[in-house]
Amino acid sequence: MKQTIAAVLTLAAGLAITAPTSAKEGMWTPQQLPDIARDLRKTGLKLKPSTLTDLTAFPMGAVISLGGCSASFVSPQGLIVTNHHCARGSVQFNSTADNNYLETGFLAETLAGEVPATPGSRVYVTRALKDVTADVLSAQTTGLNGLQRYEAIETIKKQLIKDCESDPGHRCQVSAFYGGATYTLIKRLEIQDVRLVYAPADSIGKYGGDIDNWQWPRHTGDFAFYRAYVAPDGAPAAFSEDNVPYEPEHVLSVSAGGLEDGDFVMAAGYPGSTQRYRRLAEVEHAFGWDYPTWIALADKRIATIEKVAPKGSDARVKYESLLAGLNNYSKNRKGQIDGAQRGGLAKRRAAQESAFNAWAQENSGSADYLGAARALDTLIAVEVAEDKKAFWDSYAQSGQLLRTASMLYRLAKEREKPDAERDAGYQDRDLPFITQSLQSIERRYDDSVDQALWALLLEQYLAQPEALRNPYFEKAIGLTPGMSQDAIKAEIATLYANTQLKDLESRLSWTEAPASAFERSDDPFIALAVALYPSNKTARDAAKTRAGDLQRQRGAYMEAFLAWKASRGEAVYPDANSTLRVTYGTVLGGSPKDGLIYEPFTRLEGIVAKDTGLAPFNAPENLLTKIGEKAYGDYALKSLGTVPVNFLTDLDSTGGNSGSPTFNRHGHLVGLLFDGTIESVNGDWDFDARTTRTIHVDTRYMLWVMETIDNAQRLIDEMTIVRKR
Amino acid sequence: MKQTIAAVLTLAAGLAITAPTSAKEGMWTPQQLPDIARDLRKTGLKLKPSTLTDLTAFPMGAVISLGGCSASFVSPQGLIVTNHHCARGSVQFNSTADNNYLETGFLAETLAGEVPATPGSRVYVTRALKDVTADVLSAQTTGLNGLQRYEAIETIKKQLIKDCESDPGHRCQVSAFYGGATYTLIKRLEIQDVRLVYAPADSIGKYGGDIDNWQWPRHTGDFAFYRAYVAPDGAPAAFSEDNVPYEPEHVLSVSAGGLEDGDFVMAAGYPGSTQRYRRLAEVEHAFGWDYPTWIALADKRIATIEKVAPKGSDARVKYESLLAGLNNYSKNRKGQIDGAQRGGLAKRRAAQESAFNAWAQENSGSADYLGAARALDTLIAVEVAEDKKAFWDSYAQSGQLLRTASMLYRLAKEREKPDAERDAGYQDRDLPFITQSLQSIERRYDDSVDQALWALLLEQYLAQPEALRNPYFEKAIGLTPGMSQDAIKAEIATLYANTQLKDLESRLSWTEAPASAFERSDDPFIALAVALYPSNKTARDAAKTRAGDLQRQRGAYMEAFLAWKASRGEAVYPDANSTLRVTYGTVLGGSPKDGLIYEPFTRLEGIVAKDTGLAPFNAPENLLTKIGEKAYGDYALKSLGTVPVNFLTDLDSTGGNSGSPTFNRHGHLVGLLFDGTIESVNGDWDFDARTTRTIHVDTRYMLWVMETIDNAQRLIDEMTIVRKR
Repeated sequence: MKQTIAAVLTLAAGLAITAPTSAKEGMWTPQQLPDIARDLRKTGLKLKPSTLTDLTAFPMGAVISLGGCSASFVSPQGLIVTNHHCARGSVQFNSTADNNYLETGFLAETLAGEVPATPGSRVYVTRALKDVTADVLSAQTTGLNGLQRYEAIETIKKQLIKDCESDPGHRCQVSAFYGGATYTLIKRLEIQDVRLVYAPADSIGKYGGDIDNWQWPRHTGDFAFYRAYVAPDGAPAAFSEDNVPYEPEHVLSVSAGGLEDGDFVMAAGYPGSTQRYRRLAEVEHAFGWDYPTWIALADKRIATIEKVAPKGSDARVKYESLLAGLNNYSKNRKGQIDGAQRGGLAKRRAAQESAFNAWAQENSGSADYLGAARALDTLIAVEVAEDKKAFWDSYAQSGQLLRTASMLYRLAKEREKPDAERDAGYQDRDLPFITQSLQSIERRYDDSVDQALWALLLEQYLAQPEALRNPYFEKAIGLTPGMSQDAIKAEIATLYANTQLKDLESRLSWTEAPASAFERSDDPFIALAVALYPSNKTARDAAKTRAGDLQRQRGAYMEAFLAWKASRGEAVYPDANSTLRVTYGTVLGGSPKDGLIYEPFTRLEGIVAKDTGLAPFNAPENLLTKIGEKAYGDYALKSLGTVPVNFLTDLDSTGGNSGSPTFNRHGHLVGLLFDGTIESVNGDWDFDARTTRTIHVDTRYMLWVMETIDNAQRLIDEMTIVRKR
Repeated sequence: MKQTIAAVLTLAAGLAITAPTSAKEGMWTPQQLPDIARDLRKTGLKLKPSTLTDLTAFPMGAVISLGGCSASFVSPQGLIVTNHHCARGSVQFNSTADNNYLETGFLAETLAGEVPATPGSRVYVTRALKDVTADVLSAQTTGLNGLQRYEAIETIKKQLIKDCESDPGHRCQVSAFYGGATYTLIKRLEIQDVRLVYAPADSIGKYGGDIDNWQWPRHTGDFAFYRAYVAPDGAPAAFSEDNVPYEPEHVLSVSAGGLEDGDFVMAAGYPGSTQRYRRLAEVEHAFGWDYPTWIALADKRIATIEKVAPKGSDARVKYESLLAGLNNYSKNRKGQIDGAQRGGLAKRRAAQESAFNAWAQENSGSADYLGAARALDTLIAVEVAEDKKAFWDSYAQSGQLLRTASMLYRLAKEREKPDAERDAGYQDRDLPFITQSLQSIERRYDDSVDQALWALLLEQYLAQPEALRNPYFEKAIGLTPGMSQDAIKAEIATLYANTQLKDLESRLSWTEAPASAFERSDDPFIALAVALYPSNKTARDAAKTRAGDLQRQRGAYMEAFLAWKASRGEAVYPDANSTLRVTYGTVLGGSPKDGLIYEPFTRLEGIVAKDTGLAPFNAPENLLTKIGEKAYGDYALKSLGTVPVNFLTDLDSTGGNSGSPTFNRHGHLVGLLFDGTIESVNGDWDFDARTTRTIHVDTRYMLWVMETIDNAQRLIDEMTIVRKR
């Protein structure tokens, strides 16, 4: 089986790749780049593609993960540049009523003035990658099915991780590629002392705010700087006054040379997840049920928060982040639905499956390609039905304190096992993150809002047909279908009145408690969690069983799919999975709609035109003045006649790519990837070359703001600025 | 005084006019066109500009008013083309549950199949214009002030109208230009038998609906056809089977030749009103108080209607039109506020006033130009304060049945006077329109919605400071500040419970009743109207007094303004006032925002791309099929490779221009003006050449739909189709 996959990938690599002319589909693993070297060069790359494959060499060695965002080293003293929106939590964390750095921006005048980032911040520097497919899909696992297979693979992964993490200061992961057809062990240095160095004010860094989110034209200064610190001996360590700046092996030069329309660009980062190879039935479930159901529920959740936690209330502050997330995802999913409709996603997927079937029928030989696809579809049909139940079950159990209690009791139960046998997420290595999540409730929980949200979700849950509900849950909590929201509220109010879990110390103390203490507790949420545990565990085990079967079958199908693509001479990049990927293309405007054209660059003057003085269109007065004075310094782009602010490209990106360094053909940093257009969001399922555009902040704008507006010359001096285009 | 104005206008006309290069500001009276002939020719007009001044000759003789919309004759049998949205009421009026022409479209296969337009529909053909400035601003009026002046002018206007309308079948009006510096008597043939001939389905004619309203890109087939009918002797007459098609003296040829980017275009129509010469204090009142207050109230009214008349309810049907209007105006006014902000309206107006002042100081001579401006500002300050009171008073008295009762009682009181002395709107000539408005309540009134809306407005009114409230009203209706909406509802419920005015026969019967009958009536709304009459009359008289003063002073200021402009060699077009105007320019895309470009044309294929199958993006299946087949017929534009749907120009237009024929350089009909972009709406106050763009439906698309989709060949055959570009 491994042989087949390797053979297939090699076959694909050996053929000439036909690249689309107007957009570059593909989130390539660095190892794949030499395979598509011809098109990289044709598109304009001057570096040798083979140099890009070494993740510990220039320039990939400078590309890092912040866990959720991407970033890069830009000075030998561990200076990191990422998006403003990736560092904004740290700005907020360091702000007080008197010193609101969100409003004023933050700039440490000296190293000593650099302040700790928000708790839990990490910098991950990739140290090594190893193909562990042979370890994971070994003789001992390939014969297994269902739960046995799932658990056997988990055990192997945990052992690989444990061995890897025996090297202190590192965090390791085993990532599945091609739906579980191959596995890679990734070893990363985990830097724990991350400090905020500089972030422009929201009125620059978050300019346009939620209104401009997913929109072009854009004028957002979405950049900020962190610095990585380590112990004096160079090893990762928790924050300490004695720590010193980390000295990265590789550092990017920052371009002030400017891009032109059509120039080659490439971005490297950690895209989160895509579903490009999902089956039609999964597309139909997502777009026909999951997304619309989620959106309808999100609208109700938003309305509830806005009603119970009105603007300006203390409670609202605690839910702003959830609210922003709901609005953001809602806009995204609506955009995905529009895009799927517009692009004919279901039709195209159906056509693809027909083509695959036709090929599979003729080319099966010893492998039953068609059977692999059909077996997968059978499993998917079950999974889709179960997913609907799991969707509602998850919302039914979504009171924050119930979730906390369930998580704590599960931790106690898991701790009864040896560390290696515990579920992922409940091992000793996960304890710091569990503690952080218990602490973060302080900033995200309000009694009345939590009750109102949970009552809303319970009411919605209870309105579902019996097949989608969980009888164990209803019995344990004592709710019955048809109850009004008010009746539900009255019912759950006693839980809230008598729990200790609102208290941080209480929550933290339970992390040490044995399961028996939970079982004796009269805290109503703890008691409910204990009562729900058996049925939830049964559901989890069932999910693992299905996951084991799905892994196996999806792997088999993806092998067939890769063989099909290889027969057509097409290289196949794996779906995004939060591992390092490279996407390349060109600076490119677009025509998202008939009659409308996106220019590839926005200009300083566009800020003045857009500015209303009211957030989020409230650029600082001195910024507007400098633009009025045409004080462009060395940063004007000749062809534009002014300083470029943001630019568009046809790069292939998704969530997690935020902060990705954008390189020019020489490998110099020319921008930071920070968003996609609304027409692109459907790209998670179906790349559409006509409409996919990614948005970047131009380093010329970044440098102009640093020099002209924020007096961050100290940081400019620390970086290597180059002018070669 | 009249001499001065004439001299000033002549002076301006004699000078070369500097025309802006990228957009053509100006809603010119046809008489002004020879004055700007040079620029008309430079822009591309091939007709002699002087031919455009004769409103009874080609092509202006073919341009007609529908009262609120513009239109034109396109066949010798009185066939009229206008916007779909101008004729949609007639489509609705003729629809039934079984024959919903809004959904299917309407096409009369023969003359006999043409059906009456919605009641009250009129076609106005301009017959003669006469400068009556000398009559209105005669020796007997120029010495007067306030109420005396107002009433003297009203008397003269009414007499002029009466004399003019002694020619049967005509309707006349006296329109003020330049804020009352000049007056024109306009005589129009009033055709009363208007029939619906053809309108495409909403899914073509209203494609994009409210979502695309004020938006570019656009794909709306906003065209429909009426026909004018007259008595067999050629005289206007009410609907009769014996009536025959009207034979217009002038008819437009319809171009199938196509426009290209940059081509000359000109539109003629009846723009409603603009405020381009208003003083800074009026700008500040509109944008600082009036618009924001109106928008906030509209948001509440919309929420009330949506709550009390949920989607799908019978009541909702009755309020759809109000709801659409509120949403439309709200979008418009928000757009105006954005535009004022973006364009720096207040700053620019202040700068203009400074420049005027500087010139006035140096050039007054015998005329006190500066004094005229200052005296106007003094009156405006009073007017602004009174306007705030009138705003709230009007909403406080806005229950539909109260408004009806007040109108009926006022009619009875006015009827006590000779016809010539009655207030405009209450003369015998106005009775048909009063009757229609009493009838239309049937389709626009729902008890619970009216009560809820009025209670909302009363609550808002009662929350205003005392200075903005009306003590007479509060006493008469028995409400007190601080009352809750529920208390108000309870209070007004008795009015609704005991009135007869919900009954059409009752309402109509009151049009004949003497005032004494009102005074004896125990109908609660009639009684309230009687009680409110004296204070309302006092307020009306006060308003007339202020209007008399304002007329005088605004006229004096405009003379000064015109003199100033003349000194700079600038022609000044008067503010729009629902009289025939011409605007010219070119087919032109735009860049409404930095980073974004509007293409000048949209394409058939854009419909397919935009279509979701759900209204308002639900083009008919056969239309999508024909596009898929590239069945362009003779209507593809070579440079575009397909049939153009809508196009953009830099013409200067506003509400009332809807349906305006758009001419090419030969005077052929190439499109119908139907909307402006949202960036243009602020043009009502301040023309911004950078952003003003007007949207037209292309006659190629119209002809393509008629021929390919709707089988309206009969109408195409009736028109003269030309192909010369």
